[in-house]
Amino acid sequence: MDVLEELRSFRERDLPYSRVLSSMCTIPHELAVKAHQLFIGTNLGDPGIFPGTVELEKKLIAMLGDLLHNKSCAGYICSGGTEANIQGIRAARNVMRKREPNIVIPKTAHFSFEKICDILCVEVRRVSVDEDYKVDLAEVERLIDEKTVAIVGIAGTTELGQIDPILELSKLAEEREIPLHIDAAFGGLVIPFMEDPYPFDFANEGVTSITLDPHKMGMATIPAGGILFKDEIFLKALEVETPYLTSKMQFTLTGTRPGTGVASAYAVLKSLGFEGMREIVRRCLRNTRMLVEEMAQLGFEPVIEPVMNVVAFKTDKAEEFKQELYRRKWVISTIREPRAIRFVVMPHVTEEVIKNFIAEFRKVI
Amino acid sequence: MDVLEELRSFRERDLPYSRVLSSMCTIPHELAVKAHQLFIGTNLGDPGIFPGTVELEKKLIAMLGDLLHNKSCAGYICSGGTEANIQGIRAARNVMRKREPNIVIPKTAHFSFEKICDILCVEVRRVSVDEDYKVDLAEVERLIDEKTVAIVGIAGTTELGQIDPILELSKLAEEREIPLHIDAAFGGLVIPFMEDPYPFDFANEGVTSITLDPHKMGMATIPAGGILFKDEIFLKALEVETPYLTSKMQFTLTGTRPGTGVASAYAVLKSLGFEGMREIVRRCLRNTRMLVEEMAQLGFEPVIEPVMNVVAFKTDKAEEFKQELYRRKWVISTIREPRAIRFVVMPHVTEEVIKNFIAEFRKVI
Repeated sequence: MDVLEELRSFRERDLPYSRVLSSMCTIPHELAVKAHQLFIGTNLGDPGIFPGTVELEKKLIAMLGDLLHNKSCAGYICSGGTEANIQGIRAARNVMRKREPNIVIPKTAHFSFEKICDILCVEVRRVSVDEDYKVDLAEVERLIDEKTVAIVGIAGTTELGQIDPILELSKLAEEREIPLHIDAAFGGLVIPFMEDPYPFDFANEGVTSITLDPHKMGMATIPAGGILFKDEIFLKALEVETPYLTSKMQFTLTGTRPGTGVASAYAVLKSLGFEGMREIVRRCLRNTRMLVEEMAQLGFEPVIEPVMNVVAFKTDKAEEFKQELYRRKWVISTIREPRAIRFVVMPHVTEEVIKNFIAEFRKVI
Repeated sequence: MDVLEELRSFRERDLPYSRVLSSMCTIPHELAVKAHQLFIGTNLGDPGIFPGTVELEKKLIAMLGDLLHNKSCAGYICSGGTEANIQGIRAARNVMRKREPNIVIPKTAHFSFEKICDILCVEVRRVSVDEDYKVDLAEVERLIDEKTVAIVGIAGTTELGQIDPILELSKLAEEREIPLHIDAAFGGLVIPFMEDPYPFDFANEGVTSITLDPHKMGMATIPAGGILFKDEIFLKALEVETPYLTSKMQFTLTGTRPGTGVASAYAVLKSLGFEGMREIVRRCLRNTRMLVEEMAQLGFEPVIEPVMNVVAFKTDKAEEFKQELYRRKWVISTIREPRAIRFVVMPHVTEEVIKNFIAEFRKVI
């Protein structure tokens, strides 16, 4: 057997996305794949060799800045939301220069903040959420002290797709002169394309950095995360010198860095345009409502009315359902507080996928 | 202009590798590109969805472990050498649990250790090198104290391709019961394929982790770095819980993680085999000697006799040469101590490339 055949045999054991209702990633867009292939040999870690790819990244960052109400934002395309969150917090920590720094984040923040706490040696103070699963503002205020180097707000929580009260967080951050990092890894390419979008971005004076991943709702190829800063000061706070490269300084976490994510993200956003993205998001939201209706007929109630294309349904049997469905080669996920089964209605979760899933789920319950 | 045409116009402004003599990356192997394409939609960050790709990664890690004299090593394929070095040091730091931890590393260590120092809040103690640019053992011993959580040795320094005295470092590490991390990002896929290879790996009892990047001499597609641990204890020291994924714990730095690097690295190593890799390395070393001879005829002397396919030549005009060559669309790099121009003779640096380069360089000097 030649090696490509062997590889194919491994690949065939993976599950198809048509049976995955748990992931914030999706099948990359056809144009993303083509763009990726054009840039497969590129390395943004050595910019002097790849001036064209560097230029393209600048255009993409400007495009994202435009979307996020800050045309002059600074940032780069990275390995994903975890690197983006690390860099957002690291930049804030380095700018603030406190001994024994802490950050104040919602309990609903992604688990990568546990890594960040360990990696960056910052204390993580987790704040309770209200009955809508939005961060409790009074508690945020109470937990801030003179050693707080960042406040974190979430625009599209991983578990429920909820949006924190970022307007109020921004005012607080401005008053207390503390950087405000927004984790919009998922929501950053959903919210701007919704009707009457919640203003989660740089339109708020207090927001200093935003995580936004094109390889989630941007349908780019993996890896394509994004970290955007309000201004260059934060990027500068990440720099180290780079002898023996074609650059002088490097602000990225990784060194060698593929240009494929830049190309694939650019291809999708440029060709679909903001109008095309609106259509994608509209369809995902419509399918989310369809899932809610189908689940209602089976007696399941959502934890909160879905804010975007993420929804969880209360059930004490969450783990059992997940495991039994996985045995049948369907992937959903669960949350623990409250016990619920969770769905992400990505572009690959079409009406047909939902119908097939509901038919299977009927057998399980 | 459609978006793919636009992308092509950016890509064309990048320099071709046939004019790059400075990079530790290269044109990916043809099979690596094909393997990459098969796995373009995979995400190892959500292993339950991609059991086939997970299995393939295990096979690759075992293959690398076999090469590094430790079939039962633990590890994973990551974004590159920087992540691998971060994780090696982070694991050691977490296992050792010291207040105000420090690490003792050669002055010749890659600049990513500056990032690591900032990111992980460890003090970096840089040790002088001897006249051969190998770390000074007596100074390593002097700088170790009760707060030292790791010693670092380099197998293939970025500037000169030198190998530290890892046998002696290993004995010291064992005696003092301190983890020894080896940065073999480059050398890890060169040294094992040389005649009479220096024993830099897990054959030494004291070595606890090794960085080894398939996207350098392994001709895999970017991103394909590697971090390997002597045993699982170190990997466990990196774990955080992962609710709402198909796994329970995650030890990687990034969350979403492409399977493309696994597939492309596996394709190259499996199809070429260790014998095929020996042939690649033999050719690179032969071309390195050719470059040394050509440069000797132009009056340039190497800083040290090349140990592997990295070589630097002393000159006070290093920066001028580099800039003038870049103006002519040739990329070399420089080092600062001593002032020298530096070359990496990767598989794409063929006899013909060297001849073309020397013809151009004659005009410059």
